[in-house]
Amino acid sequence: MIENNKMILTATTANSWIYPEVKNWAENLDDLVKDVVECYEAGATIAHVHLPRGQEVETVKRIREQCDIIIQGGMSSDIIPDRKGDFKAKPDMLSIILNHHDEHFTQINVSRLHTLDELEEYCMKCKESKIKPEWEVWNTGSYWNLNYLINKGLLEPPHVLTLFFNWPGGTWSPPTADEYLHRIKYMPPNSLHSVSIMGENQAKIATLAISHGGNVRVGTEDYPFIKRGKPAVNNAEIVAKYVRICKEMDREIADPTEARKIMKLK
Amino acid sequence: MIENNKMILTATTANSWIYPEVKNWAENLDDLVKDVVECYEAGATIAHVHLPRGQEVETVKRIREQCDIIIQGGMSSDIIPDRKGDFKAKPDMLSIILNHHDEHFTQINVSRLHTLDELEEYCMKCKESKIKPEWEVWNTGSYWNLNYLINKGLLEPPHVLTLFFNWPGGTWSPPTADEYLHRIKYMPPNSLHSVSIMGENQAKIATLAISHGGNVRVGTEDYPFIKRGKPAVNNAEIVAKYVRICKEMDREIADPTEARKIMKLK
Amino acid sequence: MIENNKMILTATTANSWIYPEVKNWAENLDDLVKDVVECYEAGATIAHVHLPRGQEVETVKRIREQCDIIIQGGMSSDIIPDRKGDFKAKPDMLSIILNHHDEHFTQINVSRLHTLDELEEYCMKCKESKIKPEWEVWNTGSYWNLNYLINKGLLEPPHVLTLFFNWPGGTWSPPTADEYLHRIKYMPPNSLHSVSIMGENQAKIATLAISHGGNVRVGTEDYPFIKRGKPAVNNAEIVAKYVRICKEMDREIADPTEARKIMKLK
Amino acid sequence: MIENNKMILTATTANSWIYPEVKNWAENLDDLVKDVVECYEAGATIAHVHLPRGQEVETVKRIREQCDIIIQGGMSSDIIPDRKGDFKAKPDMLSIILNHHDEHFTQINVSRLHTLDELEEYCMKCKESKIKPEWEVWNTGSYWNLNYLINKGLLEPPHVLTLFFNWPGGTWSPPTADEYLHRIKYMPPNSLHSVSIMGENQAKIATLAISHGGNVRVGTEDYPFIKRGKPAVNNAEIVAKYVRICKEMDREIADPTEARKIMKLK
Repeated sequence: MIENNKMILTATTANSWIYPEVKNWAENLDDLVKDVVECYEAGATIAHVHLPRGQEVETVKRIREQCDIIIQGGMSSDIIPDRKGDFKAKPDMLSIILNHHDEHFTQINVSRLHTLDELEEYCMKCKESKIKPEWEVWNTGSYWNLNYLINKGLLEPPHVLTLFFNWPGGTWSPPTADEYLHRIKYMPPNSLHSVSIMGENQAKIATLAISHGGNVRVGTEDYPFIKRGKPAVNNAEIVAKYVRICKEMDREIADPTEARKIMKLK
Repeated sequence: MIENNKMILTATTANSWIYPEVKNWAENLDDLVKDVVECYEAGATIAHVHLPRGQEVETVKRIREQCDIIIQGGMSSDIIPDRKGDFKAKPDMLSIILNHHDEHFTQINVSRLHTLDELEEYCMKCKESKIKPEWEVWNTGSYWNLNYLINKGLLEPPHVLTLFFNWPGGTWSPPTADEYLHRIKYMPPNSLHSVSIMGENQAKIATLAISHGGNVRVGTEDYPFIKRGKPAVNNAEIVAKYVRICKEMDREIADPTEARKIMKLK
Repeated sequence: MIENNKMILTATTANSWIYPEVKNWAENLDDLVKDVVECYEAGATIAHVHLPRGQEVETVKRIREQCDIIIQGGMSSDIIPDRKGDFKAKPDMLSIILNHHDEHFTQINVSRLHTLDELEEYCMKCKESKIKPEWEVWNTGSYWNLNYLINKGLLEPPHVLTLFFNWPGGTWSPPTADEYLHRIKYMPPNSLHSVSIMGENQAKIATLAISHGGNVRVGTEDYPFIKRGKPAVNNAEIVAKYVRICKEMDREIADPTEARKIMKLK
Repeated sequence: MIENNKMILTATTANSWIYPEVKNWAENLDDLVKDVVECYEAGATIAHVHLPRGQEVETVKRIREQCDIIIQGGMSSDIIPDRKGDFKAKPDMLSIILNHHDEHFTQINVSRLHTLDELEEYCMKCKESKIKPEWEVWNTGSYWNLNYLINKGLLEPPHVLTLFFNWPGGTWSPPTADEYLHRIKYMPPNSLHSVSIMGENQAKIATLAISHGGNVRVGTEDYPFIKRGKPAVNNAEIVAKYVRICKEMDREIADPTEARKIMKLK
C-alpha cells in the first residue's frame, strides 16, 4: 500500500439493494449509458456496471464509444454459466466474490456458494479473456481463498480488491474504523483495495480509505443519497462529491489511463 | 461478559481435520465413551462429541451412565435431515454453524450453505427438544444472522457461542490477539463465548479467552498435540493441561452442575 | 460521545513550532485580532489564542468587540504564576496540559512538569474565574490525572478535551487511526474531544474525528499548510477548508452560541 | 520480534509501591541477597534490584558470589548524580526511564523530569561502564525519545525495553490487551521487550507477552500476590509460577548465559 498514490474512484450505477424505493438509477440501457458517461465526466475512473443480461456486448460497446472509463462487469455472486455474456462483452474488469455470499436485502435474499474449483475456473477464464478480476472481500476468510489462488500461480499482481462493509446478511461486517483497519491488515502483498459501504457510514469508511492510500467505490447501488435523507440527483452528483473530498484531503484522482497502468490492465 | 466468572472447559474428542495422521482419538464407540469419561475426570465441563451416525442415542446413554459431563452434539455444518439422530439422542446441547461453511481440510473440503430459513428451523427444533444450541461464529457476519434470530424472538439468553480461529478455507480467520479482540467486541449482549483454535497458536488465543472471562474448547479435533510436535496421549492429557493453566491464571473451572446453571440448560 | 452532533471547530492562530520558517501567522496584536475575526467569519467556533503576555486583557477585549467567537487562552504548559494575565483577561476557556510536557520543537525544547497539586490549583482558579478548562490529553496517563481531578469533585461536566497527535518529543503519539481509536476508547464519561495534529497526517485524524462525533482544531500552530508544501494564505483559509470537509461529510458546525451551550460555558 | 525464542524472566524484588502493607520483600541486605538467590534457583534470568544506596557495590558483589543471575540496577527515575553507586557497582544492566515520570503511589508521589540531555548522558555513562541500559517505556512518547537516542548513534542493538502497565499517575496506561498490542506495534526495530504490570491483571498481560515472543517481569514490586488476595511467600514463589506458565505455553526460559548472548551484554 503506497500512501499518496493517485486514487481510483469507482462509480457503481446499479439499483440500491437496501433502499429500493429511491429509484434514482437507470432502468433502461439508454439511461444507463448516459449515467456512466456523466460519472466519467464528473471524474470517475471505473464504472461498475451490472451489464444487462442479453445486452452485455452492446452495453460495453456503447459506453466505449462515448468515453474512456474503465468498465467493470458486476453481479459478482453469479455463477460462471450465468456470466457468459459478461465474458463475451470483454469489459476491462470483472467482479468476483471470493467466497460464499449470504445477503439479506430488502426485497431479495442471496445465498450463493462459490467453491474453490469455481474460483479457479474464474481465474482461468479471466486470463484467457484478458479481463482483470476484481476480487470482492467480505472478511479474512476471503483472503484465505485469495491466497490459495495466488499460491497456485493463477493470478498476476497487483490484486485488485474491494472490501465490503455493512451489507446485510451472513457476510455482514460493521462499517467501523476498526473493521477497516483489521481488514487491510491481513491483505495479501501486492494488493490494491477499494471500499464499498452500504448506509450512512459510507463517508466514515471512504475517508479512511482516502487517507490510507486506498480507493473508493460509491454510487446508487451502495448508498443512493447525497446526504442523510436526500437522494442524489444521479450518480454523477455522488461522484462529484467524492472528487471534492479527495481534493480537500490532498489526494489526486487517477484518470482511466493512469489507473490502467496502476492496475496493469491489458 | 463477566470477568472472573467460572470457566467452562469443553473437550472436543473428534478426529483432527488438519493433522489426520496423528490418530490419537477414539475410532470406535467403546474408546469414545472411555475418552469422554477421562476428559470429565480430568476436569472438562462439556464434551463436544461427533455422535456416531446411527449410534447417537446409544452414545449419549452410555456417557450419561458413567459421568455427569454436559454433552454437546457436533457436526455443526450438517443439514437438519442428517441430524435426526442427534435430535433423538437429546444431548444437552447441539452445535450449529451460524452461516455458510467453506473449509479446506487436509483430506476433505466442506462447502455447506446454511440459509436463514434453515437456521430458523434449527431454533424451533432445539426449543421443542429442550436442547441448547451452541452457535458457531466465524466472523462478524455470523453475528448478523444471530441477531436476526434473536430479534425474531427465536432464542432465549444466554446465547452460547464458540468463536473459531484458523480453520483453513473461506471462513478462515487469523489466530491473533487482534482478531480475538475484534470478534468479542461485536458479540450480541447476553452472550457467553468459547474459542476453538486450530494449530500452534491455540494457547495464545486460549489464554486470551481465559483472561477476558471467556471459555475454552480444546481437544484432538482442534489441535491434537500436547506441545509443539508432540501428540497428546489422549484428550484427558490436553484437558489436564488447560486445567493447570486456568489455575495458574486464577480462574476456577465450572463443574457441569455449575455450567448448567450458567448456560441455563434444561 | 454523540454522533451527528454539531461540530466545534477551533482555529489555533499561533506560530508553528515545527515549521518556524513559514511565518504565515500574526506577529503583532493588530494582525492577531484581524486573523481571529477572519477565522470567525470563515466559520470557526473557538479561537485558541496565545494571548500576548502583558496584553492579555486588551487582546480579549478587542476580539470581543468585533465578534462572538469563543476565546480560548493558550500556552497550556505554562505554570500558573506565568498565566496571571490569562486569568485576569477572563477568556471563555483556558488550555491546560494534564501532565508533564516534553516537547522537542525545531527551535526550542519544552520540559515542563505539572504536578497534581498544580492541576488542582488550576481547577480552583478556573472555577473562581468562571473559565472553562480545556484539558490537553497526550496519552492514557493524562486520563489518569483527569479522573483524579474528577473524582475529587473539582470539575463540572462536560469535560472539554483536546487530544494531541504527532507533537515531537517525549509526549509524542503517532498520527494514526489506531492511535485515535485507542485514545478515545479510554476517555472519561461526559467528555467532548477535539484533535490537534502536527504534520501532513492532519486530515487523516481530523476526518476520523469528524466521522466519530469529535471536534477539530486546525490552524497555523498545528499545520500551517493548506495542502502539502503550500503555506496557507492565512488561518481563515484553513478554517474554510475544514468547513467544506464537514459539509461534505454531513456534519454541521456549531456557531459560538450553540457551542457555549454544548460545553456549558458561563 | 522473534516468536518462540527463549524467554527472559525478570524478578523485581523491591517493595510494592501500591500494596505497602504486604511486606513480603527483603528489608535488609542479607534477606535481599537470599531472595535474589532463591529467584535464581526458581528459574529467574534477571534480578531487578533496587541496590541499597551506599551498599551498591557490596550488594552486587554478594549476589555474584552466590549465583550467575543477571543483575539489573533499579530506581530508573533517579537522576544521574543519585546513581553514582549504581555505576560504581557495575551491575550487568541499569534501568532508565525514557521520559518524565509522574507516579501516584499509596505513600509517595514521584514527579521526575528526564530531559533529552540527561538521557544522552545516561547513554554515554552506560557505554563507558559497559552496562546495558534497560529502557522503561510508558507510552509512545518514550519511543520518540528512544528513537532520538538511536538516531544520534548513542546506542547499540538490541534495545532492551520494559513496557509498563497500570502504574498509577500521569504516566498510567491500562492493563489491557489492546494497550499491549498498541505498544508493541510502535517499538523501534531491534528491540526486545519485557512487561511490568501492577495489579490483578498481571497474568493477562504477562501471558500475552509470553505468546507474542516477549519477556516478563514479575515480583513483589509489581504485584506481591501469588493469587488474588493471597500474598506470595516470597519472590521465588512468584517466579516458579511463571516458570510453570511458560512451560505450559510451550516457551522455554533462557538461563543467564543464554540471555547475556541474546541481549549482547558485555
